Amino acid sequence: MQALHALPDPEALAESISHQDRSAVAKALNLLDDKRPEARQRAARLLAALPKQRLYRSGHLIGLTGPPGAGKSSLTAALVRVWRKRGLTVGILAVDPSSPISGGALLGDRLRMLSGSSDASVFIRSLACRGEFGGLSAEVWPMSLVMLAAFDMVLVETVGVGQKEIDVSKLTDTTCFVAQPASGDSVQFLKAGIMEVPHVLVVNKSDVGNAARKTLSELRASLQPPSHTEGWQVPALTASATVGTGIEALADSIEAHRTWLVEKGLLAPGRRRFQAEWIIKRLAEEFGRFGIETLGGRSTLLSSLVEAQRPPFEQYDALRHRLLARWHDD
Amino acid sequence: MQALHALPDPEALAESISHQDRSAVAKALNLLDDKRPEARQRAARLLAALPKQRLYRSGHLIGLTGPPGAGKSSLTAALVRVWRKRGLTVGILAVDPSSPISGGALLGDRLRMLSGSSDASVFIRSLACRGEFGGLSAEVWPMSLVMLAAFDMVLVETVGVGQKEIDVSKLTDTTCFVAQPASGDSVQFLKAGIMEVPHVLVVNKSDVGNAARKTLSELRASLQPPSHTEGWQVPALTASATVGTGIEALADSIEAHRTWLVEKGLLAPGRRRFQAEWIIKRLAEEFGRFGIETLGGRSTLLSSLVEAQRPPFEQYDALRHRLLARWHDD
Repeated sequence: MQALHALPDPEALAESISHQDRSAVAKALNLLDDKRPEARQRAARLLAALPKQRLYRSGHLIGLTGPPGAGKSSLTAALVRVWRKRGLTVGILAVDPSSPISGGALLGDRLRMLSGSSDASVFIRSLACRGEFGGLSAEVWPMSLVMLAAFDMVLVETVGVGQKEIDVSKLTDTTCFVAQPASGDSVQFLKAGIMEVPHVLVVNKSDVGNAARKTLSELRASLQPPSHTEGWQVPALTASATVGTGIEALADSIEAHRTWLVEKGLLAPGRRRFQAEWIIKRLAEEFGRFGIETLGGRSTLLSSLVEAQRPPFEQYDALRHRLLARWHDD
Repeated sequence: MQALHALPDPEALAESISHQDRSAVAKALNLLDDKRPEARQRAARLLAALPKQRLYRSGHLIGLTGPPGAGKSSLTAALVRVWRKRGLTVGILAVDPSSPISGGALLGDRLRMLSGSSDASVFIRSLACRGEFGGLSAEVWPMSLVMLAAFDMVLVETVGVGQKEIDVSKLTDTTCFVAQPASGDSVQFLKAGIMEVPHVLVVNKSDVGNAARKTLSELRASLQPPSHTEGWQVPALTASATVGTGIEALADSIEAHRTWLVEKGLLAPGRRRFQAEWIIKRLAEEFGRFGIETLGGRSTLLSSLVEAQRPPFEQYDALRHRLLARWHDD
């Protein structure tokens, strides 16, 4: 626990973040994680001071999900190498409790191995150490904004299916689902409509036998008829993070989805909507359905939040105060 | 929508239910599903009128979960046949949106095929037709109580992993997870601690090749070290619903878990706790964390609800009114 006087100056911090100062990013994430009222106020100021252009129009926010054991951390390391070769800076937010990334050292080691130990353009933050998923989702959106202000590619790694608190597909521009060969359950979840259809599907470990190809065709079949994504054709690929095959194609597919979003004019509105959804989710956790109804109901609230285009904590705090004002102290 | 004057008399309904009158059970479930204030009041009276002995000490409440495609509905039909042979009455609550049971006719057909079409001792109710999971979980507990008042075995079928709104393991005496052969994802979810450890594990489709046996040993390995269940050793079995092998053993394992619960004195306290958790969950959905804190916080609330031993809607409504009383009309 840092002393209050040690809390950083939010406006100076925002300035440093937009110059990709890694230690500023680290301090900002700590600040967002600090629950004390003074820290909360500074966090609100920090988010308000970040350049809006970068938060809502630049960069690429990518969700990488998939069951534990699918090789998400190796795939992340391989993607990072491709992105670095393409001159892009990378920030990683790991919220998968089963992940070796969240576990700590392992991905760091892999990245050092793959991309050179002194690479200051890859930033990793793990959110899993707090265990039992609790409270994680509350931080993912503001942390993503801080990362977007500093880096070109921001990757959020989660388990996806089965992880209750984080629905990353509602918080990222492009969601990529990593399946493992013979992942019958994922196929079934997709088929039954229980799992959100991702924007990019990749079966990892294509170097091991023929299972990957078989799983790929099952996954492809489960995507018929094409999903809700307004005309985006979900690519289904194979890759091997270990051998290094298919990674360039995966990076291309992820980029193609961003290009498509921009062409359709969906990138900025999407992020505004994620933010609005995040605010409503936080308010619902704190004040329930009754609170949301009191504020005019979900859909009214959603459109007014999207339209207002104000920093997230500012919107959240204003609504929170409106609710608290209507509560008797007794 | 039925007219108000057509709403059933709750006390008479409770009486008929405890005599296993199927049409009374059906009417009661409709009543629980009716959101009008008058219906809500009658539903509360109905639950208060059901014999407590049957709700909290008799019968067996079983959760059957597993990914879509694992063959839960065939396995249910096979289990029903075994239970009927053993002279037990059966009620089924299907809340799995992907299930052919929830879909309607299919399980009915299977059951007719397996256990004789005029079997009045098997009752099936599907909750999935309302789509998108919304609002389902709110009804599962009171509906389970109605079923317990009428039948010996009450089986709740859900998808489990990946289904956000229903955590059936928090609402049933015995949870049974049905895996399919080569269900690598389920193994990984168990291993990573993302999936709740069930009380009974069964790999279905053991008639198809050797995959079931391989999956079984993977699942067994993922259960090491033994789970939290206070000394209960989780049995891991194979079965084939199609061929009919392993079903008796599965029924035995499910029964053994109930016997164990009774011996440890856990059955009645468990159900009291499910009820308390259900009430807290409903209140949290409606009034958020703030509402729960206002009522004294989760753990205080939990112990006072368990101790009070009052009918569920009575407890819920009392707490709800306490919260509403503190809200300004503005």
